[in-house]
Formats: sequence, structure tokens, C-alpha cells
Amino acid sequence: MKDLTNKNGVFDVHTEDVMVPEWKRGLESLKMLRPRLKQLSILGIGLSVPTDGKITAEVIVVSSFEELESIDNAIIKGKIILFNTNFTTYENTIQYRRNSAVKAARKGAVAVLVRSITPISLYTTHTGDLVYEPHVKKIPAAAITIEDADFLQRIHNRGEVIVIEIQMSNELKANISRNLIIDVKGYDIPDKMVIVSGHIDSWDVGQGAIDDGGGMMISWFVPVVLNYLKLKPRRTLRAILWTSEEVGLNGAKAYLERHSDELDNIDFIMESDEGTFKPLGLEVAGSKNVTCLINEILQLFKPWDLNRLKVANSTGSDISIFIDKGIPGASLLNKDDRYFWYHHSNADTLTAQNKSDVLDCAAFWAAISYLIAELPVDIRRS
Amino acid sequence: MKDLTNKNGVFDVHTEDVMVPEWKRGLESLKMLRPRLKQLSILGIGLSVPTDGKITAEVIVVSSFEELESIDNAIIKGKIILFNTNFTTYENTIQYRRNSAVKAARKGAVAVLVRSITPISLYTTHTGDLVYEPHVKKIPAAAITIEDADFLQRIHNRGEVIVIEIQMSNELKANISRNLIIDVKGYDIPDKMVIVSGHIDSWDVGQGAIDDGGGMMISWFVPVVLNYLKLKPRRTLRAILWTSEEVGLNGAKAYLERHSDELDNIDFIMESDEGTFKPLGLEVAGSKNVTCLINEILQLFKPWDLNRLKVANSTGSDISIFIDKGIPGASLLNKDDRYFWYHHSNADTLTAQNKSDVLDCAAFWAAISYLIAELPVDIRRS
Repeated sequence: MKDLTNKNGVFDVHTEDVMVPEWKRGLESLKMLRPRLKQLSILGIGLSVPTDGKITAEVIVVSSFEELESIDNAIIKGKIILFNTNFTTYENTIQYRRNSAVKAARKGAVAVLVRSITPISLYTTHTGDLVYEPHVKKIPAAAITIEDADFLQRIHNRGEVIVIEIQMSNELKANISRNLIIDVKGYDIPDKMVIVSGHIDSWDVGQGAIDDGGGMMISWFVPVVLNYLKLKPRRTLRAILWTSEEVGLNGAKAYLERHSDELDNIDFIMESDEGTFKPLGLEVAGSKNVTCLINEILQLFKPWDLNRLKVANSTGSDISIFIDKGIPGASLLNKDDRYFWYHHSNADTLTAQNKSDVLDCAAFWAAISYLIAELPVDIRRS
Repeated sequence: MKDLTNKNGVFDVHTEDVMVPEWKRGLESLKMLRPRLKQLSILGIGLSVPTDGKITAEVIVVSSFEELESIDNAIIKGKIILFNTNFTTYENTIQYRRNSAVKAARKGAVAVLVRSITPISLYTTHTGDLVYEPHVKKIPAAAITIEDADFLQRIHNRGEVIVIEIQMSNELKANISRNLIIDVKGYDIPDKMVIVSGHIDSWDVGQGAIDDGGGMMISWFVPVVLNYLKLKPRRTLRAILWTSEEVGLNGAKAYLERHSDELDNIDFIMESDEGTFKPLGLEVAGSKNVTCLINEILQLFKPWDLNRLKVANSTGSDISIFIDKGIPGASLLNKDDRYFWYHHSNADTLTAQNKSDVLDCAAFWAAISYLIAELPVDIRRS
């Protein structure tokens, strides 16, 4: 991306090293042995420990943590727990991908399977990250399709014993990665800054075109097109391509730490990580002053039906830790109904992107961030 | 199904043997070797010959038979052809699954890949059958996902050389299967017959819940529910579960041959093989007399919004060969927009079925076929 930036005539670009966890998927296999032999689709959840050989055990199907808690530890012990939880919202359902391993391990389970976090499936498995806790045994966790979760549920409901064999060989090590930072220096108050961003890492399945290729590209586009148009805003417009968002916002955390004494200089921070479908406006987190101001600016985009403002307590992914520090920010609002169809799966490819929508997102992203960076007065935080 | 029929109190059930081709999928693998190593999803097309070891060759991407014909045979020779054809309708696009192997072999290709026949994909591969021709070399054929077809197209468009390695080990042998026939004998003219049907075979991927589990079940339901309600129609109501529809209507063809002297006794023939989503009415093939009559009967279903009639030259799958003989018939009209999302793929499972829609289909199917079998006069064919 650095070379590509230079090739496009922008040279104020640098990288900052970040130590990141590198989780590498190995061979994965999932077989139902009872009540009959059947191969099932599997996708290990990122950061999961491997199985160390094969684990063969009975499966207990539950639909929630509450249901798990209601079952005696003696019954859970030595079993594999399948969490077959319906998708409601990502925020609600993601806990089953993130926390199932810990919850089940506490009750003595040897592994967990999780219904893929998606509203719709065409036999599609979705990965993502998980969280372990100190002093709780790390057990392997893998996603299966909605279809297979329903299938195992039906067998379980009939009272039949399900036995599965699971095998996952994956590796976790630390490695050096980099945030990429591209600046268009402000002509008036260059120390003050408006940041646009997206994350440059993606899961190993698919191409990461939706999560977050689109967001990364429209943020990269901002300095490139401003340079092309010979436009310089009052404040510095900084594009950041975060590394290692998927496994814990590691790029953003490293930046926050390294630049902790410059946080007051960040006037506004933006990220696009929820799709680059048809753009609609902004989701804004900040004081009432901030939302009023952004709303005024958004009205300039009314002719293109791009003036929708949604107020949120927090927003974005990487930028949420900046917003927690009181910095106002926004993420791209777009027609993202299909976002979780593709999210963290083999279906996240360029086929899911619509070129004209992405171009519209890029134009809007550049224009709105330029206008904010050009504001005659600083954004009041309260 | 015979046992299940008996268990439901219906005993006028018998089977008729049919010799059918049995195609068994073996290990399949598809790897792109150039411009870089990448594993691709593969699903051999039913009835394809195996690869006999591995085939490694350059890939040429075309979007139509016309484009293939425009390329010199010398260029095609020894290559693998990828047909990356957009889905329009099933009728238009299926030729690329069915006839690509013959068209490409005639020009010297060693194998073909076909973009899966579906309007939408979440990295989903769709199989189906193909046709070989005498005196044309049989070359292996496999389906890939829309995503991978687009991916290879982009590489091809950049002018880069694509080399892939394909391996398919599958077997074809002849075996005995059976049509299942369940009768509710007519109380007045039992030799005359109204037939309801669906096919009992499915592809090895998925569960065949949509194609044609739903159609099979609602047709099976007709004699069972009539027996339960102690209803007997004027004419015999015969439910047929056809075998081996997927690889050439073999069950239907065998029935047609064996019962060729009874065709005049078939008043009307029905099949459901295009989904059992929300039912809407019937697609009818027959003379104007026939469509008028069926339309009159359909008006009785207006209170349930089930009175839509679509006129077709032919309809159904198995029953089309009966309609070709002048027998009037109909297939179930239903809200089948998503039918080809699941068709012949791992996504064709019970998860894609909606129980209440299937029950509505079953009730409609039983009621309308009973009314036709109960008509005071025979259906005039012209």
C-alpha cells in the first residue's frame, strides 16, 4: 500500500511497527460419527487452541448461555457443546463466538461448536476471534454452518446421541506488522488533525473485500484524491490503515499508546468498517455540539441523498477506543443489510462489492472529511 | 416411504423397478497453481467422467459458447475451459452445465469448469447433470463458485496465465431403483386417473429438502390425508414418487414405457418440483379447454389467495414427457424466487424450508387434485 501510495504521487506516508498475534489455520476436519457418519463443514474460530490430535466426544446442543448454566456440570464434563443461537444483531450474537469457549470450559466441556454468526446461509461458515480467560482451560472452538447446527439440533431434539470427531491444527505466534499512515498536511493548523481510517487485515477465508477492503480503500483514497485535486485543508487530514483489527484492535491500541500525547490534536476520527454498499451518511458519536455540527455539514450532501445522521454512543471498530477517550468520531452509514452475509467467510470477495457504490462511498468519504478538516473553528468536544 | 405409507394406514402401495445410472462422487480437488497457489471449491458435475489422476493445464475463460467458437482450435487444444456465464433464467443458463463438456471437447479441451448455475452465491457450488454425445471425447466437468469464476475472470482479463490442477475420482454404474406408487382407488371410474407426483431422488450434496423433498412429501400426503379423511374421489388418485429424475427422468421414462397402453386413462398429471415455498396456484399445460376448466376450479381457492393460473407449453420435470404425449398437466406455482439459491448445493437442507408454507402447499395439493379427480366429466384434451 505504501508503494501504491507513492505511485499515486503521495509521499507523506510512513509505517509504524506493531507486534501482533498471528493465528494460522491448519488442517481442520469435523465428522459426525453417531448416529451416522457425515462430514460437516468446519471453520476454526480465530485464536482458538488446536485440538492436539483428534477429540471425539458426545455433543450437547444448547441455544444460550442460560441453557448451558441450567445443566449439571457432571453432564457437561467431557462433552462438546454446540451453541445453536439464532442471529439477532451482531452485538447480541457475537458473544457466542467470543465467549463460548470460556463458558463451556468452566463447566468441564472439551470443545465448543458455534452456529455461524450470520442472518442467512448457503451452507456458509463464518469465523472471527474469541477470548480466553486466565485460569480457565483453553478449549478449541470452531464454527459450523446454520444448516449443520439446525441438523444437529433436530437429532438432539429427537433424543439421539450425537458423537463427533473434531480435529484442528493451527498455530499462534507473535509477529511484527505495521499501521500505515498517510498525511495531507494542513495549510493552517497542521498539528490539528482529522483522521479517516479502515483496517488492512482480514480473515484468511475469502478476500476481505467487504471486511475491510472497501473501508480501507475509501480511506486510502482521501489523501490520494486530495493530492490529485491539489486540495489542502486547514487541518491535517490523516488516513490510517490499521493492522490487526480482527484479533483485538491491536494496530489501533498501539497507535493510541504511541500517540497518547497527541490525542487533543485529533479533532475528529472516522472509520469505515461496516461495508461500502450504497452510502447514506454518517453514524456519529460525540456531544450534542458535535452531532449538530456534523448534521449541518451533512445537509450539503442532501442532493445526493447522503445526509442521514445516526447518533451512537460509540461507533466504528478501531476508533471506538479513541471515542472512549472523548474524541468525537463517525463511521460510514451505508446500506449494509447484507454485510453479515459475507462477514468472515469465504463469500467475502470482490463479487460481493458493487464498484459504483464503492466509488460513491469514496467520493463522499473524501468530501466530508475534507469539509471537517477545513472547518474555520475546532470541534468543541462538549 | 413404503413403510411410512403403510404406517399411515394406506396399503394400496407398490414399487416398480427401474434400472438407473448411479453416479458416485469420489475425492475432488481443484488447485490454482499459477499465477499463485490457491485451493478452490469444486463440485463435480453429475455423470462426469473422472480425471484419471490429475489434469494440470492452462485455463481459458469464456462467457458463452459463441465466444468459445470464435477461438481457434489450436488455442483451445489441451486447455481447460471455464464457462463464466451469468445466470439469467435456469432454462437459458443450464445449457452451460449440460453441454459445455461436449462443446469444449469438440475443440480439443481436456476439461471444463462451469460457473455454478445460481443467481446468488455465498461461496456455494452447485452440481447437476451433464450430457455427453457419441463420438465426442468425454472430458471431465466440474462446477466452481460464482466468486471463484469471477476471480479467475479477473486474472484472465489482466492477461495473466492461469494454470490449474484438477482431480476427480468418481464412478458410474447401473443399479436397480424403484418408482413408488400409492393409489386411492376411484369409487366410480377407477380406471381413470389423476396423478400427483414429485421425485424421490436428490443430489448427494445437501439433503434434497427443496429439490425435491418438499414436492415428494406433498404428493405423498395426498393419498394419506384422503385416507385419513375417508374421502374417495370419482377417479383414482395416484401419487407417484419418481426415481432418478436428476440424471435424466429415468423413473418417469420407465413408467411411461411400462404403462404406455394406459396413457388415455390419465385425465390429469401433476408434479411439484420447483419448491414448496408459499403456494400461489398452478402452472398449467394443456388445451384452452383444460386451462379454462382448471381456472374455474382454482377460483374456489381465491379466499386463500391460491387461485393464480399460469399457462405454459410444458411444465414439471418428470411429467413433461407425459405432457408431450398430449396429457394435460400442471405443476405447483409457488413463491420460488429463492429456489435456485439452494438447488443442487449443500445449502438444500431443511433449514431452507418453511414448515407452514409446506403445510399450505400440501393442503392445496390435496384439495385441488381431489377436486380434479372428482370432476363429473372427463377432462377434454382438445
